[in-house]
Amino acid sequence: MASCIFCRIIKGEIPCLKLFENEKTLAFLDINPLSRGHALVIPKFHGAKLADVPDEHLTDILPIIKRLAAAAEVTDYNLLQNNGTIAHQQVHHVHFHMIPKPNEQEGLGITWPAQTTDMDKLKALQEHLKSKM
Amino acid sequence: MASCIFCRIIKGEIPCLKLFENEKTLAFLDINPLSRGHALVIPKFHGAKLADVPDEHLTDILPIIKRLAAAAEVTDYNLLQNNGTIAHQQVHHVHFHMIPKPNEQEGLGITWPAQTTDMDKLKALQEHLKSKM
Repeated sequence: MASCIFCRIIKGEIPCLKLFENEKTLAFLDINPLSRGHALVIPKFHGAKLADVPDEHLTDILPIIKRLAAAAEVTDYNLLQNNGTIAHQQVHHVHFHMIPKPNEQEGLGITWPAQTTDMDKLKALQEHLKSKM
Repeated sequence: MASCIFCRIIKGEIPCLKLFENEKTLAFLDINPLSRGHALVIPKFHGAKLADVPDEHLTDILPIIKRLAAAAEVTDYNLLQNNGTIAHQQVHHVHFHMIPKPNEQEGLGITWPAQTTDMDKLKALQEHLKSKM
Protein backbone atom coordinates (compact mmCIF):
# COMPACT_ATOMS: atom_id res chain seq x y z
CA MET A 1 0.00 0.00 0.00
CA ALA A 2 1.57 3.25 -1.19
CA SER A 3 0.94 5.21 1.99
CA CYS A 4 1.90 2.45 4.45
CA ILE A 5 5.22 3.10 6.17
CA PHE A 6 5.99 -0.60 6.51
CA CYS A 7 5.21 -1.26 2.83
CA ARG A 8 7.61 1.57 2.00
CA ILE A 9 10.27 -0.01 4.22
CA ILE A 10 9.72 -3.36 2.48
CA LYS A 11 10.14 -1.69 -0.93
CA GLY A 12 13.32 0.04 0.28
CA GLU A 13 11.85 3.54 -0.08
CA ILE A 14 12.48 4.14 3.62
CA PRO A 15 15.57 2.72 5.32
CA CYS A 16 15.40 0.28 8.22
CA LEU A 17 17.86 -1.51 10.46
CA LYS A 18 17.30 -4.82 8.72
CA LEU A 19 18.10 -8.02 10.59
CA PHE A 20 16.65 -10.68 8.35
CA GLU A 21 14.62 -11.01 5.18
CA ASN A 22 13.17 -13.80 3.14
CA GLU A 23 10.51 -14.01 0.45
CA LYS A 24 7.58 -13.41 2.80
CA THR A 25 8.95 -11.82 5.94
CA LEU A 26 11.13 -8.91 7.08
CA ALA A 27 12.70 -8.33 10.50
CA PHE A 28 14.29 -5.09 11.66
CA LEU A 29 15.18 -3.21 14.83
CA ASP A 30 12.61 -0.90 16.35
CA ILE A 31 14.23 2.56 16.38
CA ASN A 32 12.25 3.52 19.48
CA PRO A 33 13.14 0.43 21.50
CA LEU A 34 11.77 -0.50 24.88
CA SER A 35 14.94 -2.50 25.51
CA ARG A 36 18.13 -3.59 23.75
CA GLY A 37 17.24 -5.91 20.87
CA HIS A 38 13.60 -4.82 20.52
CA ALA A 39 12.76 -5.96 16.99
CA LEU A 40 9.79 -6.07 14.64
CA VAL A 41 8.87 -8.98 12.41
CA ILE A 42 6.41 -8.23 9.62
CA PRO A 43 4.82 -10.15 6.78
CA LYS A 44 5.57 -8.49 3.45
CA PHE A 45 1.94 -9.01 2.54
CA HIS A 46 0.05 -5.86 3.50
CA GLY A 47 -2.73 -6.48 5.98
CA ALA A 48 -3.83 -4.05 8.65
CA LYS A 49 -4.80 -6.78 11.10
CA LEU A 50 -3.99 -10.46 11.51
CA ALA A 51 -7.33 -11.36 9.90
CA ASP A 52 -6.17 -9.61 6.71
CA VAL A 53 -3.03 -11.73 6.23
CA PRO A 54 -3.35 -15.16 4.56
CA ASP A 55 -2.10 -18.09 6.65
CA GLU A 56 0.78 -18.87 4.30
CA HIS A 57 2.28 -15.45 5.07
CA LEU A 58 2.23 -16.17 8.82
CA THR A 59 4.06 -19.50 8.88
CA ASP A 60 7.55 -18.00 9.13
CA ILE A 61 6.81 -15.46 11.82
CA LEU A 62 7.21 -17.46 15.04
CA PRO A 63 10.33 -19.36 13.91
CA ILE A 64 11.94 -16.05 12.93
CA ILE A 65 11.11 -14.54 16.32
CA LYS A 66 12.79 -17.56 17.94
CA ARG A 67 15.87 -17.01 15.80
CA LEU A 68 15.96 -13.29 16.60
CA ALA A 69 15.78 -13.95 20.33
CA ALA A 70 18.55 -16.54 20.02
CA ALA A 71 20.72 -14.13 18.00
CA ALA A 72 20.22 -11.45 20.65
CA GLU A 73 20.94 -14.04 23.37
CA VAL A 74 17.64 -13.09 24.94
CA THR A 75 15.73 -15.67 26.98
CA ASP A 76 13.18 -13.41 28.68
CA TYR A 77 10.99 -11.43 26.31
CA ASN A 78 7.46 -10.60 25.25
CA LEU A 79 5.96 -11.27 21.88
CA LEU A 80 3.18 -8.77 21.21
CA GLN A 81 0.97 -8.20 18.19
CA ASN A 82 -1.73 -5.55 18.43
CA ASN A 83 -4.88 -5.45 16.31
CA GLY A 84 -6.70 -2.12 16.23
CA THR A 85 -6.02 1.37 17.50
CA ILE A 86 -7.87 0.69 20.76
CA ALA A 87 -5.56 -2.33 21.23
CA HIS A 88 -2.52 -0.02 21.00
CA GLN A 89 -1.77 -0.65 17.30
CA GLN A 90 -0.04 2.39 15.79
CA VAL A 91 1.12 1.23 12.35
CA HIS A 92 -1.69 -0.45 10.47
CA HIS A 93 0.38 -3.18 8.85
CA VAL A 94 0.61 -6.37 10.91
CA HIS A 95 3.77 -6.42 13.01
CA PHE A 96 5.05 -8.61 15.81
CA HIS A 97 7.15 -7.04 18.55
CA MET A 98 9.93 -9.13 20.09
CA ILE A 99 10.67 -7.11 23.24
CA PRO A 100 13.47 -8.32 25.50
CA LYS A 101 12.69 -8.00 29.22
CA PRO A 102 16.06 -7.63 30.95
CA ASN A 103 14.67 -6.17 34.18
CA GLU A 104 11.55 -4.71 35.76
CA GLN A 105 12.12 -1.21 34.40
CA GLU A 106 12.93 -1.92 30.75
CA GLY A 107 10.82 -3.70 28.17
CA LEU A 108 7.07 -4.15 28.05
CA GLY A 109 4.96 -3.30 31.06
CA ILE A 110 1.53 -4.85 31.26
CA THR A 111 -1.55 -4.36 33.38
CA TRP A 112 -3.86 -7.30 33.85
CA PRO A 113 -7.41 -6.28 34.83
CA ALA A 114 -8.71 -9.84 35.35
CA GLN A 115 -12.47 -10.15 35.53
CA THR A 116 -14.45 -12.17 38.05
CA THR A 117 -14.77 -15.77 36.86
CA ASP A 118 -18.34 -16.66 35.92
CA MET A 119 -18.26 -20.34 34.94
CA ASP A 120 -21.83 -20.40 33.62
CA LYS A 121 -21.16 -17.51 31.29
CA LEU A 122 -17.82 -19.01 30.23
CA LYS A 123 -19.41 -22.40 29.47
CA ALA A 124 -22.11 -20.75 27.36
CA LEU A 125 -19.44 -18.78 25.50
CA GLN A 126 -17.39 -21.96 25.00
CA GLU A 127 -20.34 -23.76 23.39
CA HIS A 128 -21.01 -20.78 21.17
CA LEU A 129 -17.40 -20.40 20.01
CA LYS A 130 -16.69 -24.12 19.70
CA SER A 131 -19.54 -24.49 17.25
CA LYS A 132 -18.01 -21.76 15.09
CA MET A 133 -14.44 -23.11 15.02
CA MET B 1 5.68 -32.94 31.90
CA ALA B 2 3.86 -34.56 34.83
CA SER B 3 3.73 -31.44 37.00
CA CYS B 4 2.82 -28.96 34.25
CA ILE B 5 -0.78 -27.77 34.51
CA PHE B 6 -1.06 -27.28 30.73
CA CYS B 7 0.32 -30.77 30.02
CA ARG B 8 -2.31 -32.11 32.44
CA ILE B 9 -5.02 -30.17 30.60
CA ILE B 10 -3.75 -31.59 27.29
CA LYS B 11 -3.91 -35.13 28.72
CA GLY B 12 -7.44 -34.50 30.02
CA GLU B 13 -6.43 -34.87 33.68
CA ILE B 14 -7.66 -31.35 34.35
CA PRO B 15 -10.74 -29.99 32.57
CA CYS B 16 -10.66 -26.96 30.33
CA LEU B 17 -13.14 -24.95 28.31
CA LYS B 18 -11.90 -26.37 25.04
CA LEU B 19 -12.51 -24.41 21.84
CA PHE B 20 -10.40 -26.27 19.31
CA GLU B 21 -7.91 -29.10 19.13
CA ASN B 22 -5.81 -30.74 16.49
CA GLU B 23 -2.78 -33.02 16.55
CA LYS B 24 -0.34 -30.33 17.68
CA THR B 25 -2.36 -27.53 19.20
CA LEU B 26 -5.06 -26.87 21.80
CA ALA B 27 -7.17 -23.75 22.31
CA PHE B 28 -9.35 -23.04 25.33
CA LEU B 29 -10.93 -20.16 27.20
CA ASP B 30 -8.95 -18.45 29.95
CA ILE B 31 -11.00 -18.88 33.12
CA ASN B 32 -9.64 -15.60 34.52
CA PRO B 33 -10.38 -13.53 31.43
CA LEU B 34 -9.40 -9.92 30.86
CA SER B 35 -12.34 -9.60 28.45
CA ARG B 36 -15.05 -11.71 26.83
CA GLY B 37 -13.46 -14.28 24.53
CA HIS B 38 -9.97 -14.20 26.12
CA ALA B 39 -8.49 -17.50 24.95
CA LEU B 40 -5.23 -19.41 25.16
CA VAL B 41 -3.61 -21.29 22.30
CA ILE B 42 -0.89 -23.76 23.28
CA PRO B 43 1.35 -26.23 21.48
CA LYS B 44 0.86 -29.74 22.86
CA PHE B 45 4.63 -30.11 22.83
CA HIS B 46 5.91 -29.10 26.27
CA GLY B 47 8.36 -26.23 26.17
CA ALA B 48 8.71 -23.59 28.84
CA LYS B 49 9.70 -20.85 26.40
CA LEU B 50 9.33 -20.32 22.66
CA ALA B 51 12.97 -21.40 22.18
CA ASP B 52 12.05 -24.81 23.60
CA VAL B 53 9.33 -25.58 21.03
CA PRO B 54 10.35 -26.96 17.60
CA ASP B 55 9.22 -24.89 14.62
CA GLU B 56 6.84 -27.55 13.34
CA HIS B 57 4.80 -27.22 16.54
CA LEU B 58 4.40 -23.47 16.00
CA THR B 59 3.06 -23.43 12.45
CA ASP B 60 -0.60 -23.74 13.43
CA ILE B 61 -0.63 -21.16 16.17
CA LEU B 62 -1.20 -17.90 14.28
CA PRO B 63 -3.84 -19.32 11.90
CA ILE B 64 -5.73 -20.72 14.91
CA ILE B 65 -5.60 -17.36 16.68
CA LYS B 66 -7.06 -15.80 13.51
CA ARG B 67 -9.86 -18.36 13.52
CA LEU B 68 -10.57 -17.82 17.23
CA ALA B 69 -10.85 -14.08 16.77
CA ALA B 70 -13.16 -14.59 13.80
CA ALA B 71 -15.33 -17.04 15.77
CA ALA B 72 -15.59 -14.53 18.61
CA GLU B 73 -16.33 -11.78 16.08
CA VAL B 74 -13.45 -9.83 17.55
CA THR B 75 -11.53 -7.38 15.38
CA ASP B 76 -9.58 -5.51 18.07
CA TYR B 77 -7.37 -7.69 20.22
CA ASN B 78 -3.87 -8.30 21.51
CA LEU B 79 -1.83 -11.39 20.91
CA LEU B 80 0.67 -11.84 23.75
CA GLN B 81 3.20 -14.56 24.49
CA ASN B 82 5.44 -14.12 27.52
CA ASN B 83 8.81 -15.79 27.97
CA GLY B 84 10.16 -15.86 31.52
CA THR B 85 8.84 -14.92 34.94
CA ILE B 86 10.28 -11.40 34.68
CA ALA B 87 8.36 -11.05 31.39
CA HIS B 88 5.09 -11.84 33.21
CA GLN B 89 4.98 -15.55 32.32
CA GLN B 90 3.09 -17.48 34.99
CA VAL B 91 2.61 -20.98 33.54
CA HIS B 92 5.87 -22.33 32.17
CA HIS B 93 4.44 -24.04 29.11
CA VAL B 94 4.36 -21.83 26.02
CA HIS B 95 0.96 -20.15 25.60
CA PHE B 96 -0.41 -17.42 23.39
CA HIS B 97 -3.07 -15.12 24.76
CA MET B 98 -5.74 -13.83 22.38
CA ILE B 99 -7.18 -10.96 24.40
CA PRO B 100 -10.10 -9.02 22.92
CA LYS B 101 -9.90 -5.26 23.52
CA PRO B 102 -13.51 -4.05 23.47
CA ASN B 103 -12.82 -0.75 25.27
CA GLU B 104 -10.17 1.13 27.24
CA GLN B 105 -11.02 -0.53 30.56
CA GLU B 106 -11.19 -4.20 29.57
CA GLY B 107 -8.51 -6.34 27.99
CA LEU B 108 -4.76 -5.92 28.08
CA GLY B 109 -3.24 -2.71 29.37
CA ILE B 110 0.30 -1.93 28.34
CA THR B 111 2.94 0.56 29.38
CA TRP B 112 5.55 1.52 26.84
CA PRO B 113 8.75 2.91 28.40
CA ALA B 114 10.43 3.83 25.11
CA GLN B 115 14.14 4.57 25.35
CA THR B 116 15.98 7.44 23.74
CA THR B 117 16.96 6.55 20.17
CA ASP B 118 20.74 6.17 19.78
CA MET B 119 21.29 5.43 16.08
CA ASP B 120 24.99 4.62 16.48
CA LYS B 121 24.28 2.03 19.13
CA LEU B 122 21.36 0.63 17.11
CA LYS B 123 23.48 0.32 13.96
CA ALA B 124 26.20 -1.51 15.87
CA LEU B 125 23.60 -3.84 17.34
CA GLN B 126 22.08 -4.39 13.89
CA GLU B 127 25.45 -5.46 12.44
CA HIS B 128 26.04 -7.78 15.38
CA LEU B 129 22.60 -9.45 15.19
CA LYS B 130 22.48 -9.60 11.39
CA SER B 131 25.67 -11.61 11.33
CA LYS B 132 24.11 -14.12 13.71
CA MET B 133 20.82 -14.59 11.85
